[in-house]
Amino acid sequence: MIGKEIGKMLLENKEKFLIPAEQVAHIQMTNRLDHALLVLTKIGYTVIPVLDSTYKIRGLISMSLVIDAITSIEDVDFNKLGDIRVEDVMQTDFALIENPYDLEEVLHLLVRNSFVCVAASDGSFTGIVTRSEILKATNRIAHEFENKYDVKRKKEYV
Amino acid sequence: MIGKEIGKMLLENKEKFLIPAEQVAHIQMTNRLDHALLVLTKIGYTVIPVLDSTYKIRGLISMSLVIDAITSIEDVDFNKLGDIRVEDVMQTDFALIENPYDLEEVLHLLVRNSFVCVAASDGSFTGIVTRSEILKATNRIAHEFENKYDVKRKKEYV
Repeated sequence: MIGKEIGKMLLENKEKFLIPAEQVAHIQMTNRLDHALLVLTKIGYTVIPVLDSTYKIRGLISMSLVIDAITSIEDVDFNKLGDIRVEDVMQTDFALIENPYDLEEVLHLLVRNSFVCVAASDGSFTGIVTRSEILKATNRIAHEFENKYDVKRKKEYV
Repeated sequence: MIGKEIGKMLLENKEKFLIPAEQVAHIQMTNRLDHALLVLTKIGYTVIPVLDSTYKIRGLISMSLVIDAITSIEDVDFNKLGDIRVEDVMQTDFALIENPYDLEEVLHLLVRNSFVCVAASDGSFTGIVTRSEILKATNRIAHEFENKYDVKRKKEYV
């Protein structure tokens, strides 16, 4: 369980943790890889969510997955980009939690994932929580916690 | 300044923060982009350090930079991949600190950068510090700090 006072400070800017769906670039399942590559290049992100036609989150697509899909042993065949659909190569096993999300779960997931997708109970894409926002909170705790709290090591741990 | 006790807990696994150079995939400045693309795809990372022939760190190269370099308005010309050198498109403005590094500086840099490069004073590449390791420390502090310390809000902040 997360400590009560540390938890409070972690959550001070909780409303900023979630980047809402309308600010997150995404791509449709039925798009082809040439389109995915253009979107990924233009926005400068390396991974983006893949949504279906009803805006439900279904996977992630990355530059690596796109290039990997057209790469054989030592050769990259860029002609294939227009033939393959995003849904055929997207990553379907990814960090996804339901809104309202639990901070403890998010913290654990962010150790292994650079962002966590958040969805409503029906799967509709709500947004993402990124490592960057949690690192801002870590900075705040590192710098401010002991200004605001008296802290004394418990006897059994001295 | 980072709080004394929080700082101690943050640094408990400091030796694990730095991923040493020999475990970090890198590429040479004079390599061409086709090689860079293959390395990036094979290792599954999206950004890797660029070293010169004396193993000094000189920049970063990413999938986005590679694809961007061969992309005009709406077209991607993959034939150019073999013609362009990594040094011509690499990012030379990146997060770099000197070893022994300061935790406070690393924490600040990791808010905007997914990893920070660490070099010796002569520029030789020492390794990287990633967000993932700091997030592990954040988890530890969130879960354990108040088990080990008595924490009381200061009067002026109640």
